Amino acid sequence: MSEEKVISVDQTTLQMLDKAKNEGLETAWDRKVAQKAACGFGSAGVCCRNCTMGPCRVSPVPGKGAERGICGATADVIVARNFARMVAGGAAAHADHGRSIVLELLHASPNGAIQVKDEKKLKKVAARFGIETEGRDVYDVAHELAQAGLRDFGRQEGHIVLPPTVPAKRKEIWEKLDIVPRGFDREVVAIMHSTHIGCMADAEAILKMGLRCGLADGWLGSYMATEFSDIMFGTPHSRPTEASLGVLEHNQVNIVLHGHEPVLSEMIVAAAEMPEMIELAKSQGADGINLCGMCCTANEATMRHGVKLAGNFMQQELAVITGAVDALVVDVQCIFPALAKLSESYHTKFITTSPKARITGATHMEMDEAAPLKTGIAVVKEAIMNFKNRDKSKVMIPEAKTKAEVGYSTEEILNKLDGVVNSHIGPMQSTKPLADVIVAGVIRGAAGVVGCNNPKTVHDEGHLEVIKGLIKNDIIVVTTGCAAQAAAKAGLLTKEAKELAGPGLKKVCELVDIPPVLHMGSCVDISRILELVGMTANQLGVDISDLPVVGIAPEYMSEKAISIGNYVVASGIDTWLGVVPPVTGGPEVVDILTNRIEEWVGAKFFVETDPHKTVEQIVNRVNEKRKKLGI
Amino acid sequence: MSEEKVISVDQTTLQMLDKAKNEGLETAWDRKVAQKAACGFGSAGVCCRNCTMGPCRVSPVPGKGAERGICGATADVIVARNFARMVAGGAAAHADHGRSIVLELLHASPNGAIQVKDEKKLKKVAARFGIETEGRDVYDVAHELAQAGLRDFGRQEGHIVLPPTVPAKRKEIWEKLDIVPRGFDREVVAIMHSTHIGCMADAEAILKMGLRCGLADGWLGSYMATEFSDIMFGTPHSRPTEASLGVLEHNQVNIVLHGHEPVLSEMIVAAAEMPEMIELAKSQGADGINLCGMCCTANEATMRHGVKLAGNFMQQELAVITGAVDALVVDVQCIFPALAKLSESYHTKFITTSPKARITGATHMEMDEAAPLKTGIAVVKEAIMNFKNRDKSKVMIPEAKTKAEVGYSTEEILNKLDGVVNSHIGPMQSTKPLADVIVAGVIRGAAGVVGCNNPKTVHDEGHLEVIKGLIKNDIIVVTTGCAAQAAAKAGLLTKEAKELAGPGLKKVCELVDIPPVLHMGSCVDISRILELVGMTANQLGVDISDLPVVGIAPEYMSEKAISIGNYVVASGIDTWLGVVPPVTGGPEVVDILTNRIEEWVGAKFFVETDPHKTVEQIVNRVNEKRKKLGI
Repeated sequence: MSEEKVISVDQTTLQMLDKAKNEGLETAWDRKVAQKAACGFGSAGVCCRNCTMGPCRVSPVPGKGAERGICGATADVIVARNFARMVAGGAAAHADHGRSIVLELLHASPNGAIQVKDEKKLKKVAARFGIETEGRDVYDVAHELAQAGLRDFGRQEGHIVLPPTVPAKRKEIWEKLDIVPRGFDREVVAIMHSTHIGCMADAEAILKMGLRCGLADGWLGSYMATEFSDIMFGTPHSRPTEASLGVLEHNQVNIVLHGHEPVLSEMIVAAAEMPEMIELAKSQGADGINLCGMCCTANEATMRHGVKLAGNFMQQELAVITGAVDALVVDVQCIFPALAKLSESYHTKFITTSPKARITGATHMEMDEAAPLKTGIAVVKEAIMNFKNRDKSKVMIPEAKTKAEVGYSTEEILNKLDGVVNSHIGPMQSTKPLADVIVAGVIRGAAGVVGCNNPKTVHDEGHLEVIKGLIKNDIIVVTTGCAAQAAAKAGLLTKEAKELAGPGLKKVCELVDIPPVLHMGSCVDISRILELVGMTANQLGVDISDLPVVGIAPEYMSEKAISIGNYVVASGIDTWLGVVPPVTGGPEVVDILTNRIEEWVGAKFFVETDPHKTVEQIVNRVNEKRKKLGI
Repeated sequence: MSEEKVISVDQTTLQMLDKAKNEGLETAWDRKVAQKAACGFGSAGVCCRNCTMGPCRVSPVPGKGAERGICGATADVIVARNFARMVAGGAAAHADHGRSIVLELLHASPNGAIQVKDEKKLKKVAARFGIETEGRDVYDVAHELAQAGLRDFGRQEGHIVLPPTVPAKRKEIWEKLDIVPRGFDREVVAIMHSTHIGCMADAEAILKMGLRCGLADGWLGSYMATEFSDIMFGTPHSRPTEASLGVLEHNQVNIVLHGHEPVLSEMIVAAAEMPEMIELAKSQGADGINLCGMCCTANEATMRHGVKLAGNFMQQELAVITGAVDALVVDVQCIFPALAKLSESYHTKFITTSPKARITGATHMEMDEAAPLKTGIAVVKEAIMNFKNRDKSKVMIPEAKTKAEVGYSTEEILNKLDGVVNSHIGPMQSTKPLADVIVAGVIRGAAGVVGCNNPKTVHDEGHLEVIKGLIKNDIIVVTTGCAAQAAAKAGLLTKEAKELAGPGLKKVCELVDIPPVLHMGSCVDISRILELVGMTANQLGVDISDLPVVGIAPEYMSEKAISIGNYVVASGIDTWLGVVPPVTGGPEVVDILTNRIEEWVGAKFFVETDPHKTVEQIVNRVNEKRKKLGI
């Protein structure tokens, strides 16, 4: 591992990296060093492997080397195709997540492991699909809703059902551009087809397909994933938790949940709370069972149960390296395949549960969609029975842990603003108070700080510097994904963090009793942000692109983030990327994404690797929007 | 262009390349040279661009360079993921083609441009979807069938409707392996999700997903594309045509149809036959309108109308270079983006028609699915009005052209074997005669020679050497795609070609009055081969993998071919690839595809770049199969 450069601003990360080094273990940072310089063609997006005439590489610099692939594709066509395929990959991940959630609702029954926990949300969502709820059995409604949802995943004719939170002006823009999604799966397939050799060879048209597919992610796949999860597992409201690798316990069975879909974590939470499981843990010499989360599974479970946050993407290996994890249980997405080999160096059971993500070397305990609690119980038992194998001489749990407040669903934020504190979620409140504070300028704007970690950046630094800079400038921050965990670990999800905020935001935090940075959930829960922003625009009678709101992914790495970027921009929200996307070899693509796209959708991409410059640019842009709005 | 090596065995190709050189024009062969050496990582499949931590490259040689990507993905995982994404790309192309055909059937009406031309086929297909046909209006049945078809494209629960031609034993194998497709679009999305960072990291599991997605292509997307095209445009029967670039005419309006979906070509055929169009052509000084085809559109149009075959994939630029093409009309897939720039050097109008394949620099005349004939007429007019702009000083049409017989649908082959000559397609005959001649050993076996051209091989050589070698060994050849065009140009699709066949096959050709090489259509029409093979297996009460049949793609290049390879092998048919697929960096992947997969599905991949060795291996393998069958 290269020692010269700062790797992380998270101290527990540095501690565990030292432990790894002492024990001769490899982490992603070592593998990053082993990769040496990244391929220039791949980094610029000008490498094409879409047929076997090649692979072709065109020159990212005009006049130097081949200017076209064998088929004649230009740099811009190749770059756009690769970029669109990243959108397809990311959207597909969210679609499949959303689909699993919707399919799970088909299994809901009054006495089963999957129940309808939030009838109000069920009714609200049913209403937007035109499903009658008055006087009907809740489960009949739920099953009909699930079928309606599935229809939009598989739709072959017409267009998907857009939520009423999409402002009318926005919908018109999409219709004019022909980017209203026609069905989730179909949009992914459409991109894969049109990027096949000899199809689309026009950067603009390809990028528009990316926008359409992205919109299917944001306003359908992710949106439904959130809504349907809330129906089954409850709409989150604010609650306390703790964050950092220090949440692992010496005398408890430590189970780390990692991945994305909430079904697994819900079942494990339920299983771990069973008296017979706690008894079993005690019989094995443990004081109890300690559930902790990684990545988005952590976000899902903490939003609804206050499950502790062990860390974010780049820390998944470090959890194992503490030596204290009895079971690392995963479902899908963002799981290092390296965990299989790494966990062999400890007693840790590395358990895969999804047929969508088998990993060589893992213990596979497949989740049965029809009887998911059974899997939850089996996994918890496996962890408990593994407690006795923990080698205490190898254990090192960092001491640091930080308090955090989580659970800010749209409903909870609006309730808070209306002065309803921590009640069970009531009827959806209006966005008027939120709109009012923005119009009044008490809050200058709002920012969603989201996305992954990426070893190309200093771990967590981008997230934290951007968030701190924004709240200081009276821009309220909502956050999801690994960004939310960075904020949690750094203490930014506390009410005390208001001291870091500008005077306006501080005042709002005090009045409403909220932190200046609100944890809105997992990556699919960016749909909550869309919902909130859409409602606010509707409240003010404007389009989303008129609002002083922005999106930032300071440390993104996944294709999901590329898809998210596409739907956020297509929704009219300027988006800052803190990692350069692989498009620099296509001058037209760069021009479209960072410039011309604004003519299409009223928002664009900004690429800025310096978090302080990012803040500066955002403040300027927010001020411009305020000026245009006349506020 | 490098002159040292032989580029093509097609003389017209060499002539046109000389013309290109003299005129200073670039072709795909020049661009191949400009690419210099292909990237070793990409060629071996060990380059990963599925997230932005990288791109990562692992060493294709163990112990040399990085062994894992930053996430920990091994060479095998990276190779398998890339391979699966190629399957997804190829299957998506066929899905979208099939979907368009099925959607078009929704527009069918008794007096419209789209009609039901083959009621018998409609009834047969309706029956397999369980749709009542007795006493019902044909168009009601057609529309209900279209909806049933669309359901399988978008299916979210259960599995697709498999045709009855899938032998029971085969279905059991698929069920045991869990590779029965669940819905077309879903399988593409599933691969895109599971190959996203942090999902599948197990080569075997990833490759099984590829098989499942491939099966959705073969037995659903492509199968329906063929069936529904036959319903609307007629099931092909044998008819004469001509092939080679020499089919272009000096004194006629030359329209070259290029791409894949038959809707466009059917409409242009209809438009070009209109008296007012012929009149218009004459008014412009032409003797008439000459329709010719390229790639699979050519195959579709020749199977049903005898439209002449101008050439295959690597000749698309050469058609323009004749200077005699008034309009080059394309829809989707395998269209060089280079055609836009190239056609500027001549008077040729390069016309795109599909929203799925916009090409910068082309004239876009979008096909209206609801009124496709209108587009057909407009395109033909455009071509006619361009005739006067032809610069005769730049025209050079090669003299060579070859007779060929095309139109061998499954129905036609079985009718022929039953002695029904060139009648309008009657009721589907039995496969008993075919099974009989195979069992008797008069024909030793059957081979499907399919797929593209690839500048990595000598143009057409692989196709021709393999076909000639096989028929000499009494192995009857069926052919589709660019392979079929190679055969046509070389005179192998004539009854006289029986002289090149072994004594058994020659006898059958004489008795039944067929060529030894049967043109079965376009690439999606490989579904006709599946149908024929499945019926024969059912006739003999065995599984497909028991039959002495093989598949060969001597010069493939597209992702579609990779998808096809997956479904052909998964269907139990050994498959030879004449171009090395990008998997050599994954030893486990190589072992699975060329060895272990046989334990799963009773067939495997062979990679052999020498066509003569390919023939030798096939003869041995066919003999082994015969021995096992006890025949």
